[in-house]
Amino acid sequence: MKIKTLVLNPSQSQRRYLQLYDSICADILQGRMKKGDQLPSIRSAAKQLNVSRTTIENAYQRLLMEGLIVALPQRGYFVDAEEAQSELRCDIMNTGIEKQPDEEWIDLRSSSIDAEAFDTNVWLHYIKLVLQNHTWLTSYGDSQGEYLLRKTLQKYSYAMRGVLCKEDQIVIGANFQSLLYLICSLYQGKKVIGMEKSGFIQAEQVFHDCGFTIIYLEFDEEGIDISELSKHDLGMLYINSASSGIKKRALHSKRRKELLTYIQEHDVILLEDDHNGELRYQTKLRPAMQGFDRSDHIIYMRSFSKLLLPSIRMSFMVLNESMHQIYKRKKQNYHPSASKLEQLALAHYLMDGHMEKQIRQLRKRYEANSSLMMELLETHFSSFTYLLDETSLQILLYPRRSHDVTAYIEAAKDQRILVQRYGKEALALSFASLSATTLKEALLLLAEVWKVVE
Amino acid sequence: MKIKTLVLNPSQSQRRYLQLYDSICADILQGRMKKGDQLPSIRSAAKQLNVSRTTIENAYQRLLMEGLIVALPQRGYFVDAEEAQSELRCDIMNTGIEKQPDEEWIDLRSSSIDAEAFDTNVWLHYIKLVLQNHTWLTSYGDSQGEYLLRKTLQKYSYAMRGVLCKEDQIVIGANFQSLLYLICSLYQGKKVIGMEKSGFIQAEQVFHDCGFTIIYLEFDEEGIDISELSKHDLGMLYINSASSGIKKRALHSKRRKELLTYIQEHDVILLEDDHNGELRYQTKLRPAMQGFDRSDHIIYMRSFSKLLLPSIRMSFMVLNESMHQIYKRKKQNYHPSASKLEQLALAHYLMDGHMEKQIRQLRKRYEANSSLMMELLETHFSSFTYLLDETSLQILLYPRRSHDVTAYIEAAKDQRILVQRYGKEALALSFASLSATTLKEALLLLAEVWKVVE
Repeated sequence: MKIKTLVLNPSQSQRRYLQLYDSICADILQGRMKKGDQLPSIRSAAKQLNVSRTTIENAYQRLLMEGLIVALPQRGYFVDAEEAQSELRCDIMNTGIEKQPDEEWIDLRSSSIDAEAFDTNVWLHYIKLVLQNHTWLTSYGDSQGEYLLRKTLQKYSYAMRGVLCKEDQIVIGANFQSLLYLICSLYQGKKVIGMEKSGFIQAEQVFHDCGFTIIYLEFDEEGIDISELSKHDLGMLYINSASSGIKKRALHSKRRKELLTYIQEHDVILLEDDHNGELRYQTKLRPAMQGFDRSDHIIYMRSFSKLLLPSIRMSFMVLNESMHQIYKRKKQNYHPSASKLEQLALAHYLMDGHMEKQIRQLRKRYEANSSLMMELLETHFSSFTYLLDETSLQILLYPRRSHDVTAYIEAAKDQRILVQRYGKEALALSFASLSATTLKEALLLLAEVWKVVE
Repeated sequence: MKIKTLVLNPSQSQRRYLQLYDSICADILQGRMKKGDQLPSIRSAAKQLNVSRTTIENAYQRLLMEGLIVALPQRGYFVDAEEAQSELRCDIMNTGIEKQPDEEWIDLRSSSIDAEAFDTNVWLHYIKLVLQNHTWLTSYGDSQGEYLLRKTLQKYSYAMRGVLCKEDQIVIGANFQSLLYLICSLYQGKKVIGMEKSGFIQAEQVFHDCGFTIIYLEFDEEGIDISELSKHDLGMLYINSASSGIKKRALHSKRRKELLTYIQEHDVILLEDDHNGELRYQTKLRPAMQGFDRSDHIIYMRSFSKLLLPSIRMSFMVLNESMHQIYKRKKQNYHPSASKLEQLALAHYLMDGHMEKQIRQLRKRYEANSSLMMELLETHFSSFTYLLDETSLQILLYPRRSHDVTAYIEAAKDQRILVQRYGKEALALSFASLSATTLKEALLLLAEVWKVVE
């Protein structure tokens, strides 16, 4: 058999073996050569094309590497590409890399923030600072998180949230899930965890993967009640201390005290999710429970998604002392997950006091935005009841009559507005993702289209 | 009781409630006020200091928040700081954030690379590019990984490693562990995994956490043998296809074919760890096995730690089609873990062809460094045998006589040289972390001190 279609062009800048490779490749992918067809031997191809054997060898080597041909001992080279694969190969080689079109949607879901809410120039300054000291970045870094950031977070958490810990108790991870996997990995007690049935499915997935039984606890208006807890035999308890229960409130003092007594008496590890705990603008700021725990039963957890950019994947936790001791022994079993570049940038950002400034600005912004949204809801959305979920930066809407909210979500979509479901019977509208002007525009549009749904 | 030490200074720029807070705080932490001591009521303190009640309230509020005082109903405010906690509080407030000293160690461990091996200016360019388009960063991003990066990795993996996949089969994570947790979470088969007892403890930890039984397989010189596999009833198999077995080689063709037949016939999922598969400089480049798998049983896994900066936390995998279908249904259960900033920077870096250039340079560098190290070993280290672990960028040293290598590690430490243990009976010397000059210097120093050990 001959290589029919090939004309080697010595004036072409591309190296000859690549020209040959491209040509055979095209023959195979476009069906001119089929599975099982034999290629000429290296010797005869070299003769036929008047090139060195090395050129042919290099071309065949590449085809072999890509699995387009096989070499059978004592027999020679054969095409080995199946049709389905040929299509995929063509597709990979020929489609350009296009950005998915940025469609013009108004996004009221909680997964993004208004671009104006964070000064990316300040952030860029710290990213540059770290990159300029580039020897910092030539090693993996501490799997526990960078020392500088842990030290900074220790001070920040004390000043802003009353958290009391040594910097060695802090572990930094890329996200909540990586921290939760770590907790499950270290934990040696009863694999039964109680949590609110609020739909934190990513946390539930981790507990499920690690063989935990999940018990959904009944929360009342004020959060978790001790009488509910004592019905179960828990090993761990997951609480969003900044917003829980029917009213989405921070746990008040009496409940906190009861809870602290309960975890001590029943030897339960409490995972305290202090979700945006410092982001209060309508209600009173309450410190984290961790600072009040005298019996070493609380693991404090935080992310910064809504305070900085959501795209910065960074969370941390403060291990209680007994888990910390286990962690110290097993530390080498875990890889670092958070970007070292972003960790060091955040450390310097915190050290220079930008976070406090950022939080002050966010409080103002979210106070204004939530008030605006509430006003609009009161005026134009009489068929819903509302609830401010302060630290989640959203308002929950419960339709007074209809109970499935799918129709509302679909009607919004028709207007190119994205709205999030909250459980089965409610919607969550985020006021963090848009400027005041766009927020108003979106809500007036929704008021219009949702009239038809009712 | 009075607040004795306080003098409010109206000319001071600090707000008055903070002055009051600081003063009481210091009294408590320095032992002038003790646990149980009562503070004056808000009314009387306001009178005593001639300030508004709000000032007192704000100061008390902050002390309450930090758990330094408690409010008892109908009784008033009392100091509630225990001595042990006071020490910790003092420590948090008063110690500065100092960088841990960069000590002058020569690091021959595998956890870092030579700062010269990667052009951080090019990287900075792409980081800036992404930060300038800052609306990209105001949302969480796709938990599967950014579309642009997945599309780029699809092309890169095909061109460089012969990997065949749709971009939708690719999942990006911060590190190998996060990808392995995800695989365990999606996997529905027999929870028995076979792997080489090579000490990849971070992978073993994940399988252990997710309830897998780990079977250590016997590897021979060429890697895994099928007769060894058929002794066990495996659900999954973990193979480093770029370097395995006693000789640390890429699996050769015959073994690969047997393995492909085995996983198909026994319905075993093969996790192919293509560790630095393209980083060949002494032996022949072999493509990944994934491209040859016609029965949908291979999950291909990669990280970029040694090709880019180790501090960039980025790994990806190509799910086989059946796992991909499960993933599509459960995708919302998982959070993104890799930094979106670094993902987009890497996408543009790859699109502009920098990776190929970087790999060409690394091959040259590592060919030179490994040859240099081999030469030095042959001349000066006659009491060891050596083995090049090419893709791991290290040479394994086995002492001919002594069997515990601790003494060598300690002797190196005395010279401020860090050397890594490899199993119980070997040392691993990385040639990636140092320039040729330092490498030579370090090895001559080691040759000297290890003579005494022997």
